[in-house]
Amino acid sequence: MTVRQLSVPELVDACGRLGVRHVGLWREPVRSHGLEATAKLVRDAGLAVSTLCRGGFLTAVDPGERAGALADNRRAIDEAATLGTDTLVLVSGGLPPGSRDLRGARERVADALADLGPYAASHGVRLAVEPLHPMFAADRCVVSTLAQALDLAERFPAHQVGVAVDTYHVWWDDTAPAQIARAGAAGRIHTFQLADWTTPLPEGVLNGRGQLGDGSIDLRAWKDHVEAAGYTGPIEVELFNDGLWARDGREVLAETASRFLEHAA
Amino acid sequence: MTVRQLSVPELVDACGRLGVRHVGLWREPVRSHGLEATAKLVRDAGLAVSTLCRGGFLTAVDPGERAGALADNRRAIDEAATLGTDTLVLVSGGLPPGSRDLRGARERVADALADLGPYAASHGVRLAVEPLHPMFAADRCVVSTLAQALDLAERFPAHQVGVAVDTYHVWWDDTAPAQIARAGAAGRIHTFQLADWTTPLPEGVLNGRGQLGDGSIDLRAWKDHVEAAGYTGPIEVELFNDGLWARDGREVLAETASRFLEHAA
Repeated sequence: MTVRQLSVPELVDACGRLGVRHVGLWREPVRSHGLEATAKLVRDAGLAVSTLCRGGFLTAVDPGERAGALADNRRAIDEAATLGTDTLVLVSGGLPPGSRDLRGARERVADALADLGPYAASHGVRLAVEPLHPMFAADRCVVSTLAQALDLAERFPAHQVGVAVDTYHVWWDDTAPAQIARAGAAGRIHTFQLADWTTPLPEGVLNGRGQLGDGSIDLRAWKDHVEAAGYTGPIEVELFNDGLWARDGREVLAETASRFLEHAA
Repeated sequence: MTVRQLSVPELVDACGRLGVRHVGLWREPVRSHGLEATAKLVRDAGLAVSTLCRGGFLTAVDPGERAGALADNRRAIDEAATLGTDTLVLVSGGLPPGSRDLRGARERVADALADLGPYAASHGVRLAVEPLHPMFAADRCVVSTLAQALDLAERFPAHQVGVAVDTYHVWWDDTAPAQIARAGAAGRIHTFQLADWTTPLPEGVLNGRGQLGDGSIDLRAWKDHVEAAGYTGPIEVELFNDGLWARDGREVLAETASRFLEHAA
C-alpha cells in the first residue's frame, strides 16, 4: 500500500531492483492482477510475501453480515495460503451503526477468532490481530492497544492467533514495550510494521501515516523492543499517505528503503 | 468553550436563564472581559466557576521557555483563585520540535508539577492533569492515559495535583474504569468533562468533539464510573466543534443542557 500507484508486476520488478526480498500485499491489488498470477509472479521473482492485508471487520451483530464476514475471512485465508505467506493481518472493525458497546464488539471479535483460528491453522496461516490507534476505535477497529489484542489472542494457540505490532498505532503507549515482551515470550508477534507519526492529521485521519524519519516516533527503539522480544521476521513499512501516493512509485519505494536504512536498520 | 461565540456577560446571562449553576471558563475570554470584572459578574449572578482552563504546556527543554511556562502557569493559578474556582486544568504540552523522547517530556511535566503544586495549594487551587486522547501525543499532550496522569499526580499530595477525566479522551480505554476508581479512592478526580465521539474526525482533529448523544460514547456509563468512585463535583460539557460555534450560542447552550439531561443525568 505504500506504493499503491504501482501495479503488482511493477512492484515486483522494483523490489527486485532495490534488493527488497519480502513484500506485504493487500487483497485488492492481488485480485486485480489475479491471485494465481500474483503467486506465480512473486515466486518466480524470488520474492517472499511477508503478510496479506487484510481480513477482519468482525464486529457486526446482524447474523447475515456476520456469516458474510466469516466467509470473506476464510477466502482471505485461502488467498494467503496460495500466496505462500503464513500471516493474515486482521483489522477488527468498528462499532456497528448506533452502537456504543465497545466491550460487546470486542467479544464478537473473539467469537469470530474461535471460528477462523482453526481454519487458518489448517491452511498453514496465522492470524495477526492488529490493534489500531485509539482514534480508530469507533469506525475501524475496536481493538486499540496491544494489551487488548493479546487478551484476545491468548484465548487461542499462538500458531492460530497472534498480533501485529505497528509503530504508528502503539508509539504513544508507555505500556507497549512490556506488551511486546509479553507477545514475544508467547511467540505471538506475527508481524512488525513501521510508519512515522506526522501532524497535522488529515481529515478522516486514515491517510496521514508519515514517511520514516519525518515524524515523532523513535523507530529504532521500537525495532529494538520487538527484536529483544525474539522477533526475527521481516519488517514491513506501511504508509497510507496521499502525498506519497501522488509521486512516482519507484522513487517512493527507493526513498522508503533508504529511510529504513537510516532510521531503523 | 462550548459556546465561545457568547461574550462572558452573554454566557452568564444564558446560564442564569437555563438554571446552569456552574461554568468552566477559559483564560482568553476571561482576559477579554477582564479578570476582576468576570469574577464580580459570575459572583453577583450566583454562578460558580467549576474550573479554569487551562494551564500546562510544560514540556519545553529550553530554560527560557520553561521559565516562561512556569510563570504563565503561576498567573493562571492566580486567575483561578481570583475567579473563585479551586481547580486549574493542565494540558501537558507536546513533544518539542524535532524530539522523539516522550518519556523525557513526561518527566519535565513532573518537574514542573513539583514547582507549581505547592504554589497552587497556597492559593487554594488544585491542579488537574488532563490526559488527552493519544492522537494528541505528539503536538499537544504527552500524557495520553489516565494511568499516566495518575502516575504523575501521585508523586504529589492530592490537594496539589489530581486529574481531569474527560470522556472524549478516555472512552476507548478498557483500563480507564479501574483508573477512575484509583483516582477516586485518592481524592484525585478534580473535574469530570463530557463530550461525545463523532466521526469522521476533521483535519487537525482538534475541533471534532461531538454534541452529547451524537456519537459513540456511553456517557451515562462514564458518569456512573466517576460517581461510583466518589466524585460529587460539577460535570462540565466541553465541545470544540466548528459546527456548534457557527450557530446561535444561546440555542447551543440550551440544546447542550437538554442533551445532558437526556444522555447523562
